[in-house]
Amino acid sequence: MHAEAIFTGTEMLLGQITNTNAAFLGEQLAAAGISLYRQVVVGDNLERIKQAINNARKEADIIIVSGGLGPTEDDLSREALAEALNLRLVEHPEALENVKRYFKSRDLLMTSNNLKQALVPEGAKILNNPVGTACGIFLEHDNKRYILLPGPPHEFKLMVTEQVLPLLQLHNNKKEIILSRILKMTNIGESAVEKTVKDLLHGQNPTVAPLSKPGQVILRITARANSPEKAKEMITPLEKEIRQRLKDFIFGTDDDTLEGIVGKLLAEKNLTLATAESCTGGLVANRITNISGSSSYFLGGMITYSNEAKINLLGVDPYILKAKGAVSPDVAEAMATGIRNVMGADIGIGITGIAGPGGGSPQKPVGLVYIGLDYKGKLFVKKNLFAGQREIIKWQSSQNALYLLWKNLNKS
Amino acid sequence: MHAEAIFTGTEMLLGQITNTNAAFLGEQLAAAGISLYRQVVVGDNLERIKQAINNARKEADIIIVSGGLGPTEDDLSREALAEALNLRLVEHPEALENVKRYFKSRDLLMTSNNLKQALVPEGAKILNNPVGTACGIFLEHDNKRYILLPGPPHEFKLMVTEQVLPLLQLHNNKKEIILSRILKMTNIGESAVEKTVKDLLHGQNPTVAPLSKPGQVILRITARANSPEKAKEMITPLEKEIRQRLKDFIFGTDDDTLEGIVGKLLAEKNLTLATAESCTGGLVANRITNISGSSSYFLGGMITYSNEAKINLLGVDPYILKAKGAVSPDVAEAMATGIRNVMGADIGIGITGIAGPGGGSPQKPVGLVYIGLDYKGKLFVKKNLFAGQREIIKWQSSQNALYLLWKNLNKS
Repeated sequence: MHAEAIFTGTEMLLGQITNTNAAFLGEQLAAAGISLYRQVVVGDNLERIKQAINNARKEADIIIVSGGLGPTEDDLSREALAEALNLRLVEHPEALENVKRYFKSRDLLMTSNNLKQALVPEGAKILNNPVGTACGIFLEHDNKRYILLPGPPHEFKLMVTEQVLPLLQLHNNKKEIILSRILKMTNIGESAVEKTVKDLLHGQNPTVAPLSKPGQVILRITARANSPEKAKEMITPLEKEIRQRLKDFIFGTDDDTLEGIVGKLLAEKNLTLATAESCTGGLVANRITNISGSSSYFLGGMITYSNEAKINLLGVDPYILKAKGAVSPDVAEAMATGIRNVMGADIGIGITGIAGPGGGSPQKPVGLVYIGLDYKGKLFVKKNLFAGQREIIKWQSSQNALYLLWKNLNKS
Repeated sequence: MHAEAIFTGTEMLLGQITNTNAAFLGEQLAAAGISLYRQVVVGDNLERIKQAINNARKEADIIIVSGGLGPTEDDLSREALAEALNLRLVEHPEALENVKRYFKSRDLLMTSNNLKQALVPEGAKILNNPVGTACGIFLEHDNKRYILLPGPPHEFKLMVTEQVLPLLQLHNNKKEIILSRILKMTNIGESAVEKTVKDLLHGQNPTVAPLSKPGQVILRITARANSPEKAKEMITPLEKEIRQRLKDFIFGTDDDTLEGIVGKLLAEKNLTLATAESCTGGLVANRITNISGSSSYFLGGMITYSNEAKINLLGVDPYILKAKGAVSPDVAEAMATGIRNVMGADIGIGITGIAGPGGGSPQKPVGLVYIGLDYKGKLFVKKNLFAGQREIIKWQSSQNALYLLWKNLNKS
């Protein structure tokens, strides 16, 4: 059983709003074992919505339409469905009651165009909408199921969870579910990951697929099975195999973040951390403190852009700054040690580099970033050369700083 | 001339990532006067991408495909285009050079699967990608234009603006354009904004539409006209009227950010800034340093979670901490003054509060945040009570700190 989703709304085509219903619906259907093969966005136009419905019903068993159920002339989904299937629109007494009740309960005047919201294609059932005037519509026709839902995200999401999923699960006698396991890596590129697991990428069930964004690569293992337990059984050996090959880089799974994992390790090991940042400008501290409970292991940080601040606040030796320059491995180490001493922490991180777009030179180009770590007196430093714009360079630097910390927390 | 956009990526169908390229592309095409009639999302599957391209070319003049240009076996857009049009894939010497150069400049080892990124359908040109290994592909075939772009949002967006729009504008002869002007506000809620401009929300051309997210409300004025000058003429009087009504809250327009506007004012007035953050954990410093050139006015910052750090590093009076508690207006002010003194800045910001989810009490609930400002010795403090999760509370705190600074920079 597979589905296609159609999202109506000219404002999405114009980029005035981001279609957040799409990701939500995709996630919910996957969890329910219903494959979504295609999402289509079309404007508030009768012909194009009709065409989208006709395209979808050529292949999909379930056609879900979001939006276009309101009272205005721009709201055309019910008309499009009726025309596509050559059905009449009829007034649905329950839908009419719903509209009337909604207006009455809010002491609002019902205008005649709201009556349109009581129309459904003949044979359709309505889906109750507890938070708006527009009922949803459910129609079984020619062995296909059509579901029309209101577009506002809070109405759409509530109705997907409370009405659509139970309804589809009733009809889903195959009972197949899709389960994914995500392995998250950093400090390694997408093609290196792919090369390492090349032989695992051709399976049909489970499948393994790589995905990357700056500073992170994920491998997603996805299994279809008739129970979550069975799916897990199919995923586990693959996960084990991948972990063996890439163990130096896999820091977490599913919803894990690097800062969350590092925080958990710091808390477990009863260690404290402090940060001294130059080019990242507080991003590392910000990420660490996004984790609730971080105040128990994060003692604090400094953002020291100027040489004076590095000397006066962190105790960096002015001779090193002069001899090696502010962007140097020596200064990264000295900043790590400096903040560790000032804050009285077990571990200090020091970051210095050139985030750009200005400030680069042939010897020290934009993207050159040194990350220093003082781990209870043991010093580490890493040279990086990142590509991209300022915020991407900052992000990759923070990712690498947290990775260096993670690696050392795992060792000890 | 109209376009269709195809976004490839199974992770979008599964709801694992939100398709942010779609809104961006829609906005950019609209501004360039190119209608986007349909957006389609399909998985990483050769047949389905091919089918999407074939569907699109039945109607659209311009077919834009996002994603699937990476080095892995999941990356299938170039193959799909070649098969759809019955063209061979050939190695493009310039694309090969680009891939090699990218790896060389970063001292990375190029693996053989990266060579795939040098393939293009015969007759295609490449579109340079300054921030990644995957070139874009531009092909004119049978009076249609095909544009393939890498999927990672920072690559996609840069290439749309820098390569695709100039290329399409060359070919666009219709000339009706859509122009939007965005007015950005903070420190005011959406319903207050809506109430203030209620009478302006019903126009057909130009239109005015509100949109809000935590800590920010925008009003978008959109006009259709046959020239940018004409559209601007239609927008200007409306913008003037709105500015008159909401001038205390409108900090910027279009792509402006609050941190960018504040930075510009600091640079213009030749003033320096330092930050002392507790509950925001470095977020304010991070946002300020996202602006290139911020090192000329941002002297540095501290993240002081503990009382000891507040006392020893910022010179906060321990008696105040004891008498009023760390989350108090007095401590916010003392942090602002402390960091101003330590860094030798003209302006100091101090933030103390409870970001949650733990640490709240009936007297001092989660979301209580004090923001202190020491503006050349003049003290201001603002009490806030924010709702939402930890990161939302941090974000709103940073937004309000920058707003307080912005207001005072405008006054002086």
